[in-house]
Amino acid sequence: MGRGRTLEYPKTAINKVNRYNQRATYDLEQIHSIINTSSVVHVSFNTPDPNNPFPVTLPMVGVAASYEHPSASLGEPLDIYLHGYVSSRLMNLSRDANANANANADAASTPPTPTPTPTGLPVTISATKIDGLILTLTPNTHDINYRSAVVYGYATIVTDVAEKLWAMEQVTNSVVRDRWRFTRLPPDNAEMQSTSILRVSVVGGSGKIRVGGPRDEQKDLVRDDLRDTVWTGVVPVYEHLGEPVPHKENRVKDVPAHVLEYVKDTREANAKYAADATVDQSQD
Amino acid sequence: MGRGRTLEYPKTAINKVNRYNQRATYDLEQIHSIINTSSVVHVSFNTPDPNNPFPVTLPMVGVAASYEHPSASLGEPLDIYLHGYVSSRLMNLSRDANANANANADAASTPPTPTPTPTGLPVTISATKIDGLILTLTPNTHDINYRSAVVYGYATIVTDVAEKLWAMEQVTNSVVRDRWRFTRLPPDNAEMQSTSILRVSVVGGSGKIRVGGPRDEQKDLVRDDLRDTVWTGVVPVYEHLGEPVPHKENRVKDVPAHVLEYVKDTREANAKYAADATVDQSQD
Repeated sequence: MGRGRTLEYPKTAINKVNRYNQRATYDLEQIHSIINTSSVVHVSFNTPDPNNPFPVTLPMVGVAASYEHPSASLGEPLDIYLHGYVSSRLMNLSRDANANANANADAASTPPTPTPTPTGLPVTISATKIDGLILTLTPNTHDINYRSAVVYGYATIVTDVAEKLWAMEQVTNSVVRDRWRFTRLPPDNAEMQSTSILRVSVVGGSGKIRVGGPRDEQKDLVRDDLRDTVWTGVVPVYEHLGEPVPHKENRVKDVPAHVLEYVKDTREANAKYAADATVDQSQD
Repeated sequence: MGRGRTLEYPKTAINKVNRYNQRATYDLEQIHSIINTSSVVHVSFNTPDPNNPFPVTLPMVGVAASYEHPSASLGEPLDIYLHGYVSSRLMNLSRDANANANANADAASTPPTPTPTPTGLPVTISATKIDGLILTLTPNTHDINYRSAVVYGYATIVTDVAEKLWAMEQVTNSVVRDRWRFTRLPPDNAEMQSTSILRVSVVGGSGKIRVGGPRDEQKDLVRDDLRDTVWTGVVPVYEHLGEPVPHKENRVKDVPAHVLEYVKDTREANAKYAADATVDQSQD
């Protein structure tokens, strides 16, 4: 990977953010960071049913990571690993997509092309974090500070056992940092069978970010009657982690350090981002 | 509307929640409530481009409400109003969908059928709230408390001025309760022109809700070595509203009551839901 260079998803007709370009980002690090700080992502895909014009959307746990380059940073190309269940529609469709691709490959009498057509189920993955409510002089200028990421790619079921185990570790640690190694390991055969992991080979993505305070129009800012009566400002919004609540079956007296530290760090990072986002940025 | 009766979205092949049926809901009030307590929803739809197999997903401000029956409760059939911008892809596609429908109607030599085919752009709207992190003995039983809603329907642009103004009020008040009447009203012509509101006629929906504490398996619960070393419990998660930050242009000395009360009530409701969700429910 190039060093000192910011990698971006290519702008195409599909992912180009048409409105509010000042808020658009194609920066891999920003987009992957939004996904990895979201506990749940939304996964949208189409069913083969010709009578269903609606994309299906499922909430899933997702994490951006690279099995081939495990030390890759968030600013480098990553796959998205999704955690789900073998019986779900998404898993079945991904399995069908794989099977069709393999069947086509088997049936082909010509050798495989060097750049094969993508296989797997086309999916769009989205995640949004709310950072503040923008209160202004007039309804139209009201807004929301937020960070939103959308990536799309082809989903296939992970069949390699080593990759699957690795991905399960990434998924678990995306819920609570470093949690995996403090649990009963490894997953047994029944657990490996009942769990499915999807790997999405990302082909593109984009993000939208809104930061800063109110942006009222000059026509309203010159009116003393408005300025003297309408409060304007930002209500910061952030995900807060409460005090850990032990389960009734729990026997370990103290909440372990990896949980306490995760709660503390996440609280601070979330509150800080929302506070920083209330301030107008010079380049914005 | 029937009284004392809980309305549900019909279960169909499209919306049936196949996995974890104990978490599934088709209850209108629960589904609409998730949407209306989410500042931002995700709107997914397909583009007409045959080379693009990926649904487009956009973050938008959305609110469930009924213009025809403004006093309708969350448990009654509602439309979803979405706020966007005239230049965006979604708005253009919705306009095209309307135009095509109208063109077809004009061209038809036969009278319109009593139950016309749905017009508008098929969209799927999703919203998810995170309520807690479930820490258990083994990675596979780790989970997340959450509330997720998905509704789908046909989006058309609101052209009636009275309905559009009403919808803009609903959208503004969905960001901060009761905000609309404390701002400069009404929107002027330029604002009405630059703002588009989509009305989604909902044809179905479903929700998934996970509440309660850890659910470990018997095979692990009988192991003293695990029970004595692995902490299990819930980390509550909820959206927190911080102290309102006045803008540098703001001249109103005190944060107004409608803002303070909204912040206080939302804080309390969010924290309470997450705390209640840590407790195992008897029917769950």
